Amino acid sequence: MLSPGAVIGILGGGQLGRMLAVAAAELGFDVHIYTDEPGSPASRVAAKTTLASYTDAAALTAFARAVDAVTFEFENVPAAAGEALLAAGALVRPGPHALAIAQDRVSEKTYLSGAGLPTVAFEAIDSEADITPALARLGAPALLKTRRFGYDGKGQAWVRSAADAVAAWAAIAGKPAILEAKADFVREVSLIAARGADGAFVTVPLCENIHRDGILAQTRLPAATAQEIAARAASDVSQLMAKLDYVGVLTVEFFELADGALLANEIAPRVHNSGHWTQNGADISQFELQIRAVAGWPLAQPRLLGPLVMENLIGAEVENWAAIAADPSARLHLYGKRGVRPGRKLGHVTRFV
Amino acid sequence: MLSPGAVIGILGGGQLGRMLAVAAAELGFDVHIYTDEPGSPASRVAAKTTLASYTDAAALTAFARAVDAVTFEFENVPAAAGEALLAAGALVRPGPHALAIAQDRVSEKTYLSGAGLPTVAFEAIDSEADITPALARLGAPALLKTRRFGYDGKGQAWVRSAADAVAAWAAIAGKPAILEAKADFVREVSLIAARGADGAFVTVPLCENIHRDGILAQTRLPAATAQEIAARAASDVSQLMAKLDYVGVLTVEFFELADGALLANEIAPRVHNSGHWTQNGADISQFELQIRAVAGWPLAQPRLLGPLVMENLIGAEVENWAAIAADPSARLHLYGKRGVRPGRKLGHVTRFV
Repeated sequence: MLSPGAVIGILGGGQLGRMLAVAAAELGFDVHIYTDEPGSPASRVAAKTTLASYTDAAALTAFARAVDAVTFEFENVPAAAGEALLAAGALVRPGPHALAIAQDRVSEKTYLSGAGLPTVAFEAIDSEADITPALARLGAPALLKTRRFGYDGKGQAWVRSAADAVAAWAAIAGKPAILEAKADFVREVSLIAARGADGAFVTVPLCENIHRDGILAQTRLPAATAQEIAARAASDVSQLMAKLDYVGVLTVEFFELADGALLANEIAPRVHNSGHWTQNGADISQFELQIRAVAGWPLAQPRLLGPLVMENLIGAEVENWAAIAADPSARLHLYGKRGVRPGRKLGHVTRFV
Repeated sequence: MLSPGAVIGILGGGQLGRMLAVAAAELGFDVHIYTDEPGSPASRVAAKTTLASYTDAAALTAFARAVDAVTFEFENVPAAAGEALLAAGALVRPGPHALAIAQDRVSEKTYLSGAGLPTVAFEAIDSEADITPALARLGAPALLKTRRFGYDGKGQAWVRSAADAVAAWAAIAGKPAILEAKADFVREVSLIAARGADGAFVTVPLCENIHRDGILAQTRLPAATAQEIAARAASDVSQLMAKLDYVGVLTVEFFELADGALLANEIAPRVHNSGHWTQNGADISQFELQIRAVAGWPLAQPRLLGPLVMENLIGAEVENWAAIAADPSARLHLYGKRGVRPGRKLGHVTRFV
């Protein structure tokens, strides 16, 4: 167990890093942020920042030696960064194995199936010519996604017929891709779970999510999902995390089908936007769970304090801050980002309903 | 109303500054700490720190110009500091008037009586010779306290008989003092309230406090106090804050007597240790209320989420952190202070009961 006063290093300076830094400070840890963004949201609540590229081996080595444990706020950490940290002797939680799996949509879905979590049918796409035969096998419409570096709906294009292949391939800039069958879901849910260094496993109550333009717009608790289905999701994710020998918070997004089947859609090896409500709506937040796991501390099972809705503030929606601030039932969180751009996550608001 | 991205300046780098800084960051503000303590707890979660003496007029002026509003985490701000900030055009909330009153126990109790809040009987003590006649009027035992700079039981001595006068006077180093009649209370309670720039008034649910060696040991919610007595406390504090034209959080500690009378014992013109449970046990914390008031934002009425106990971790008690971390019902907060000293507040823990 890391003692209070130990330094937790976080790779990444965005809003997840910011919220992790606050959770770490509340437990008496110091936080050292590693980011390539000057004045990042996380740096502004952290004791120390290293401002350097994620491929700067010397800076990564110095960072590894300056901290007592390392975690990250995004999964697209260059493999070389993980290796440099491990080579310098850092305690990295979760380990680079889970990152590598989550970085590539084909390896991710293959791993999920192998771990007993069914996914939508999919095919790897290496060239435009692969699209039409894959579409024939999967059925139309299907979703073409880059294998790597996609998030918030970026690097995705629907393929409704063979005639769409050229445009879809161009839309994702001809990068190695995956074609996924469309899931005919009744709802989207996410299971956020934490596994401790001792193998202990806890789950955040299942989240029901509504996406708009590929970006999470709203999360509702409790999910309308039947309890036995939620229990199955928890059991599946528990097995997955044990197989990965995972330490930290991990999120699995699922499609829930009409017959109660769950299809795993995506892993995030980290705290997740759909869990931001835990800051106000649970007795322990996903951010504290992650810090506890990283520090080797015991976990605690989060309890939902009441039915609630969390809404993201995306792009110009944040300009509505004064009206939200005037709503006594609204718990507002803003990330301190400079510049309003369409599709950019700038804050969120949680309300008990 | 200050916009998100504005800079809130906080005078003081201790745990209250740290918790205020986190609350400000959650609303999208940047925080600039002014402290004379290198590596202070608050600095380690703030975007910027000015490390300078509280009497450094040039540093205070530069600080005032670098921030959009100023507040403080302790009441013993030198009057010259408040004046330097105002002279530099800073928006200071609350204003220096309330600080000046709270800094001197005689002016404090005099002001409270004048505002309709009865206090224990008291006498100003300017020399050892004043003690015996004052004790005769007030009755023994009585409590001798320095007029200024006392906190957590420091600068206090009981006077049980005229024979104690010499020792008591020596114990407080012969400083200007107050002799207070002993209150025969059934319990001690505190009323934490916030007043907005628009005059709006909200109260944190009444806190029941248990002191040990003059230091707050435990706070319990809900207080055992009858509802009509709590309502009277709120009404009295509302009048007091209006009279002070106060903007921000203010705390009044009361003695509750067997007949239901409340005697105001002390004002703290700031967030208060007895309100730390609001981080986990209310839907809005005292820290967010203070930041909202300072920023000119609307307030919200805090709601108690369930019966709870907050315990301070004082001195060596913090060494029990691992056992507390292993209790899933315990929400632990540590302040990042270096060095365990008897009587030093190093953290707190809140449990729903």
